[in-house]
Formats: sequence, structure tokens, C-alpha cells
Amino acid sequence: MRDSPPHTFTLSFIHLDREANAPLYRQIYSGLREAILQRRLAPGVRLPSTRDMADLFDVSRNTVVNAFEQLMAEGYVEARVGSGTYVTDRLPEAFLQAYRSEPPVRLHDGVRTLSRRGQSFARHYRSPARPLNHSLFLHGRPDVSAFPFETWARLAAKRYRDLPRRLFGYSRHPAGYRPLREAIAGYLRTARALRCEPEQIVIVSGSQEGLYLAGQVLLDPGDRAWIEDPGYMGARSALLCADAELCPIPVDDGGIDVDAGVEKAAGARVAYVTPSHQFPLGGTMSLARRSRLLQWSAASDAWILEDDYDSEFRYKGPPLASLQGLDVNRRVIYAGTFSKVLFPALRLGYLVIPGDLVEAFLVARSVVHLNAPIFEQVVLVDFMDGGHFNTHVRRMRTHYQERRDVFVEAAERELGGCLELGPADAGLHVTGWLPAGVDDEAVARRASELGIAVLPLSRLCLAQPPRPGLVMGFGAARPEAIPDGVRRLGQAITEVVEKGKECRERDML
Amino acid sequence: MRDSPPHTFTLSFIHLDREANAPLYRQIYSGLREAILQRRLAPGVRLPSTRDMADLFDVSRNTVVNAFEQLMAEGYVEARVGSGTYVTDRLPEAFLQAYRSEPPVRLHDGVRTLSRRGQSFARHYRSPARPLNHSLFLHGRPDVSAFPFETWARLAAKRYRDLPRRLFGYSRHPAGYRPLREAIAGYLRTARALRCEPEQIVIVSGSQEGLYLAGQVLLDPGDRAWIEDPGYMGARSALLCADAELCPIPVDDGGIDVDAGVEKAAGARVAYVTPSHQFPLGGTMSLARRSRLLQWSAASDAWILEDDYDSEFRYKGPPLASLQGLDVNRRVIYAGTFSKVLFPALRLGYLVIPGDLVEAFLVARSVVHLNAPIFEQVVLVDFMDGGHFNTHVRRMRTHYQERRDVFVEAAERELGGCLELGPADAGLHVTGWLPAGVDDEAVARRASELGIAVLPLSRLCLAQPPRPGLVMGFGAARPEAIPDGVRRLGQAITEVVEKGKECRERDML
Repeated sequence: MRDSPPHTFTLSFIHLDREANAPLYRQIYSGLREAILQRRLAPGVRLPSTRDMADLFDVSRNTVVNAFEQLMAEGYVEARVGSGTYVTDRLPEAFLQAYRSEPPVRLHDGVRTLSRRGQSFARHYRSPARPLNHSLFLHGRPDVSAFPFETWARLAAKRYRDLPRRLFGYSRHPAGYRPLREAIAGYLRTARALRCEPEQIVIVSGSQEGLYLAGQVLLDPGDRAWIEDPGYMGARSALLCADAELCPIPVDDGGIDVDAGVEKAAGARVAYVTPSHQFPLGGTMSLARRSRLLQWSAASDAWILEDDYDSEFRYKGPPLASLQGLDVNRRVIYAGTFSKVLFPALRLGYLVIPGDLVEAFLVARSVVHLNAPIFEQVVLVDFMDGGHFNTHVRRMRTHYQERRDVFVEAAERELGGCLELGPADAGLHVTGWLPAGVDDEAVARRASELGIAVLPLSRLCLAQPPRPGLVMGFGAARPEAIPDGVRRLGQAITEVVEKGKECRERDML
Repeated sequence: MRDSPPHTFTLSFIHLDREANAPLYRQIYSGLREAILQRRLAPGVRLPSTRDMADLFDVSRNTVVNAFEQLMAEGYVEARVGSGTYVTDRLPEAFLQAYRSEPPVRLHDGVRTLSRRGQSFARHYRSPARPLNHSLFLHGRPDVSAFPFETWARLAAKRYRDLPRRLFGYSRHPAGYRPLREAIAGYLRTARALRCEPEQIVIVSGSQEGLYLAGQVLLDPGDRAWIEDPGYMGARSALLCADAELCPIPVDDGGIDVDAGVEKAAGARVAYVTPSHQFPLGGTMSLARRSRLLQWSAASDAWILEDDYDSEFRYKGPPLASLQGLDVNRRVIYAGTFSKVLFPALRLGYLVIPGDLVEAFLVARSVVHLNAPIFEQVVLVDFMDGGHFNTHVRRMRTHYQERRDVFVEAAERELGGCLELGPADAGLHVTGWLPAGVDDEAVARRASELGIAVLPLSRLCLAQPPRPGLVMGFGAARPEAIPDGVRRLGQAITEVVEKGKECRERDML
């Protein structure tokens, strides 16, 4: 005897989809739960027996039992001995309200109470979703199309086959894969004259994380930190996140002006520098300044953060020795990255840390994010050990130099009158100075309309910029596209300069 | 006429290695630089001409020119017009000292001035290098040997071939690869009853990073945060890093005691909870407590951090719906990870964030470490879209259930008198209570000597532990190894209990 005809009506809103990914019991569970929350199944109502419901939905009784057990576990229904299963009448009001007035997820409707840091994060948000239709001359971009992915894929395939499975578990060392640290130490000793042992190396997810960790370990809130001005924004954010007070120190073709730094903020705890290739101006820090900086740091118990982001690519003479290699007082934390020299999406970089500071960095690394994925580290070791790394660096140096030559030649020809190029001896970008008074943001906006992505220098300045300028990347630009791109950039500059003149003339009338 | 015979003597210490990786100019440069720094080549000394040196070393003149240019760029030598190249006599004293008294890199010789946070990091360091000879019953370990790496490798190989190269550049979205966020949102809606859109999802490098970011965005220094006691240590570290004041809230088989939390710290800003499967006790938070927790958070403007670390593996009934799915006030930040369900070295997890908080998290993510590596994200989407993810979860549920059954049966048989098991309905571990007064650290030490890796419960307690216990992982243990392992664990317990009795008896004499 069927004892519950009314339910066949009540449950008609549950439609099972036998093709769906979700198992049938789950669909029944969801349907009943929804109905209870929406009060389609009122509190106290008795549900059909599992047998009846199995008939009703044409499923096995076990499927219904599973759904019931789930509902019971979560408190939506309760069994009464010898009587059957009932919708609970003690369902919390809040859950029911959820369904009565379910609001859509609202994005961007103002920020609720966050921490001060959280609020600051929210204020500094710039939508990254803006589609970037063009990237010609975007700074800091390596040419990923020239990376030997076939070789990489071959090494990876081999490792998927033969890598001991335990390496796919949790790593026990936050410093990263030991053979990679050995390979990096060897490379840095030879190529960058670093003094380092594998024990001093911590693998990080690109230099950004390295700078962030250094800020956390080295800086207390309110501590002062030298920052190059103009300089790299990512470093600025990392140090600000440690609640440091930034001290912008001027920069010229010889790198950061150390004397100005000492005069301005001798008591700073940290100096962030890019001695091999200042970002963005492109200069190399002179030996005298290196010496002065190291002296200052030793004398005032301060740390130096050396960011060596693209030193592999130097076109005039070989790469300069690192600051770290000259330091006897172990005051330098050296940050390097594989983003430029291999490819950015690899997300691998490294810190070289004075021995007595290593443990603090390792704990910081563990708390922030345990460690980097192992697989890329293993493949990278094979890539380095197999000689592919050295080959790639050599090949790319020529590759980028060709692009630099084309770019510089075109820029001198097309932009000679309106853009004065800074040093272009190294790296993937060059910075050019605009005539005084020209609005570099306006130039960048107009250039963007013409399909060119340049960075206004003023955006990298903390104190008043001495002169407006543009940061232009040539590394990812196809040589055949460069001359026309430079011409369009020239058009953007000319238009903004002309408009500026008109305005001034109008003002004088 | 050879004009510099003495130099042939002076330079005899430079040995070129024509088989070495470093180019010859680099070896000459290094040798000369070393000699200058060591004063083997004194300040003011004139170097041989490039032609002579080329003869001397049997290299091309260009090689020597390159070495000289490098030395000149770095300030070690200087050219005097019409006269030749000289070792500079203005070499900074500090550089020379470096070579006179070069100290070896000393590790572990005490920490110099770090930030307070840095000092705290250093204090909390525990050597991770300790070799772990045995891992039987280590908690939180999935069975990576059961992961279908062949399938994964096949999907990866395809992607190395066909993935657009631009995806190997810098990602423009710190939230992570959009198709992965879509796949995760779909999965969470179906399997965990979450209410979420892809826009609310931020891909992180495992849940540790998710918890860390949440701490940074939500907590000001001195803010109070509920933490389960006993509870997950990684969450504790993440919140401590935000300088929060931790409020340990007791836990029982029904999860965190919400009433106790409200009584103890009603004004807390954040509650960290593991409602699906409390770590380590294994309970599931009751519906009543869930409701109470959500009410409290809405009424007191507090946030809930829901850590759903292993909810995929539930052996009794299907997975419980998430707390996030019940919340109408968008007060829950939900953290999930692929570490347990796939493999830990993947280092991928996710946060589901209320819409109006997303931007703050994205900025925090950018500053801390830009974004996760793209390649694994792409392969993971293929893995999910191809149905491999669902298959794997289903297969592993059975796999782990078998191990749980063997473990629980062995433990009840072998340890019945001395270890009382808590709930084992889900996850990869079970916690057992030892008799009052037994030193669980001593048990763990003795077990370790017998080749068993268990975690003493007292180590997870902030306030006084109610009773000593052991956290035991069965997920990565081969079923055939379990009975003997449990027997050895029993031996360790018995020995420590007996020794304790003896001591007490001695004390009474």
C-alpha cells in the first residue's frame, strides 16, 4: 500500500539529470534540502519512505538512503522511531532567510571592515582584467617565444616517468630542492662572482616573493628603507607591506646616489638597490658607490637588498660582478629570478642570504607559503645540468642585442629631437627622457591609442621627477615591428608636445 | 719589442681551463681581479699590453680586451692615454680587506639585528633537514603513489605542444587562470554546496598561503582571532604573522565550541574553523553550532575562515555542505587545497572570497608573490574537464577507506586498552586519546625509535590539553604495513605507560 500520495506532488520539482556529473543521491539531497529551506517542504512534514521515493525517482533504494542520511547528518530531517523521516521543525531561522532573500553575490559594492593593511590593499587595486590588446615596447617582458619549450617538455616528460613519487608529496625543506640550490650556487659563483653556498639559497616564487620576505624579516613598522627614485614599484610595495617608511634616494647613470642616501637617511635599516642595471634608468653602480654603500651598511648595521633582475643580458662587456661578492660583512641579501632569463610563468627565483639569517627566512617562507612546486625545480636542474641554460643565455644575449640595436637605431633616427635615450648596455628595456614639461602620462595614453605600450617614467617616481620620460621594452618586440612602432611612438610624443605648446600659447594670449 | 717581461712572472698564477664552462675572457678577468684584490698586482702597476697578454695565454687579443674592459668597468684598472693599463691605486680598502681576511660563511653563529618579526621567525626555526627515515602514520599525507601521473604527464605533454606561448609570460591576473577558477567554482557548487562565482576565487599556492593572505587582509595588530584548540599549527602561524592575539577555543567531537568562543572573545575579528573535519580531533561541526557561528559573525562584524582541507574524503555518508554555502551575510572566507586530493607538490589551492573583499586579496596576492605558475593550472583544468578529477576522488575515497578500516580494526584490536580512537569518518588521519597523565611526547619519541611517525596531540594544544593523545595518519600507509605498525605503536605506548608507573611507584617509596 502506498502511504504517501501527496508527496508525489510535493516532490515534482526535483528533476534528476542522469547525465550530470553529480551522483543521483546528491541531486536528491540537494533538491530536498532546497525544498526544505524554501519551505516547500514545511517543518514537521513527513517525507515519503525511502522505498516510495526510490520508486518515484526510479533509483535504487540505497541512493535515497544516502540522500536521507546526508540530510539527517546536517540536521534538515530527523527520524522518529517506528514512524518515518520528518523535516525538522528546529531549523535555524537564519538558514531559511538565506533562501527567502537570497542576494546575488554583489561585487564592488564597497569594502566592509578590513584590517588597515587590507583597506590599503583595496585602495591600491587596479583592475588587471583590462585587456591588453597590444604589448609592443611593454617593459620587462622577455621573448618567451624564443624559449626552447621542446627541450623543456622532453626533460619534463622524462621526469614524470622516473621521478621518485615521494618527491610529489610535501617537501620537508622550505629552502627548496637541494640540487637546484647547488646548481644556482655554482652558477652565481661563476657568472656573478657571488660568494655563496647552497645552504644560503632559498628558492622563492620569483623575486617579488623574495623582496616581500626580506621586508618581513628585516623591517619593523616605522623603520626607514632607501628606495631608488625612480625605481621598481614591486620593491616599494614589498617594503610598504612591512610598514616601512620609504626614503626615496635619487638615481643617475651611476646608480643610486649613495651620498645623498647617507645624508638623507643614514639611520635606515635597509637599502634596496639594482646595482647591475638600475631599474628603470639603466645605469650601473660605480665601484666607488658600491664601496661607499657597503661601508655605510656595515657601519650603521643596515642591510642591502640587491635585486639582480636581468644581469644576464649585458651587451657591452661581460656582466658586472655582484655587490654581494664584494661584501665582507655579509650585509647583502641578493635576489635573482628566472623570469627574464627563462620565462615568467615558471615563477621561480632565489634569494642568497647571509648564513646567520637563513633560518629566519626559512620560517617566514614556511608561514607565507611553504615552498615552491617541486616539479619545475627538478626540470630546471636537468635544464642547467644539461647545458641548456648556458646555451639559452648566450643565444638570448645575441637575440636581445639585435633587438636593442634595431630599437636604439630607430629611436635615434625617429625620436632624436624629442627623446634622449639613457644607457642601453644591458637588459630588456631602455629609458628615454622627454623634454622638460611634457606630460609623460599623456604620451603613454596617446601611444596606447596607437598600439604602443610604454610606461611613463613619472609613475616610477616617488619624489618629484626631475624630467618626464618613457620606459620602453625591446626584448619581446619582433625586430621587423620595431621601426614602425618607434615611428608611432614618435607620433604620440609629437602630438602631445604640440598640444602642450598650443595650450601655453593660448594661455599667453 | 716585448716591454713587460716581469708580468709573465706575475701572471703565472692564472691558470686557464679550456674545458671549463666559464669563457676564457671571464677566467682572465677573474684571475686578474683576484690578483688585484689580493695585492699580488699592486696598486699603480702597469699591466702587460693586450697583445702580450694574448700571446702569454695563447688566446685571441679580443679575449683579453674583453677581460680588460670588464675590469675597467668595475674600476679595478684604468687606462692612461698613450701609456697603457694600470691597476687603480684608488681601490677601496674594504674590498682589499675582503680578501685579506676573508671569513668563511659561518652558519648558525647567532642572529644579527632583524625585525621583531624576523627575530620571532628565527626563534621558531626547527631544522627541517632532519632526515625522516620513516613516515608510517605521519599525519596529513595523501598516497601520492596512487596518483595517475601517466594521465597527468600525457595532458602536460599535449599542453607543452599547443599552449599559446604568451601564457608563459607574465600573467595579468593575480587571481589565477580563469578557466581553472571556473572549473573550481563549478566543482564547489556541486560537491560542497558553495555559493560562488569564478570572480570570487583566487588561486593560491596551497591553503597555507590562503590563510596567510586572509590574516594580512583581515587582521590588525592586536586584533583577536579564535583558533581551534587543539588545532592546525599552520593557521596559528599565519594569524600570528598578522600580529593577531590568538584566542584558543575548546573543541569536541562536534567541532569548535562556539558558545565558549562567544563567552571568551565575543569581540574577535576572525574565527578560524575546520567545520567539515576538525583538525586534529576529526569531528564535524553540528548544524546548531554552524548556525550560532554565522549569527555571531554577522552580529559582531567578524569574519570566518573556513578551512576545508580534506572534505573530499568522507567514508560515512557524502561530504557535508560547507559553512560558506549556509552563510547569507557573506562573512565566510573559504580555503581549499589540491594537496590532499591530488598531490602536495602541486602547490595549488584556492580561496573563495566574498565579492566585496576580492580586490583587497588580489592586491595582497600581487605584493606577496604575484601569482601561481600557470602551467599546472592549465593541466589541472584539463584534468578536471576530462573527468579525471572526479574519477580520482571516487577511487581514492575507496582507497583511503580501505586503509582506514584496516587501521581502525588493528588499533581497536592492539591498542584497545591504551588508546581510545576519536571519530574516523573522514580524512586521512585519526586521533586517539591516551590515558590521563601519559606523556604523549615521550610516546612519539619512543614510537619514532620503532620506526613510527605519530604526532603528539599536546603539540597542537595552546591551552592545557584536556588529555594526551596521538594524531595518526593512515592515508599514505600500505594496508599490509598497518597491523605491524600499530603493534609497534602499541609497544611504544605500553613502554611509556609502564615507565611512568615505575616512576610514580618509586616516588611513593
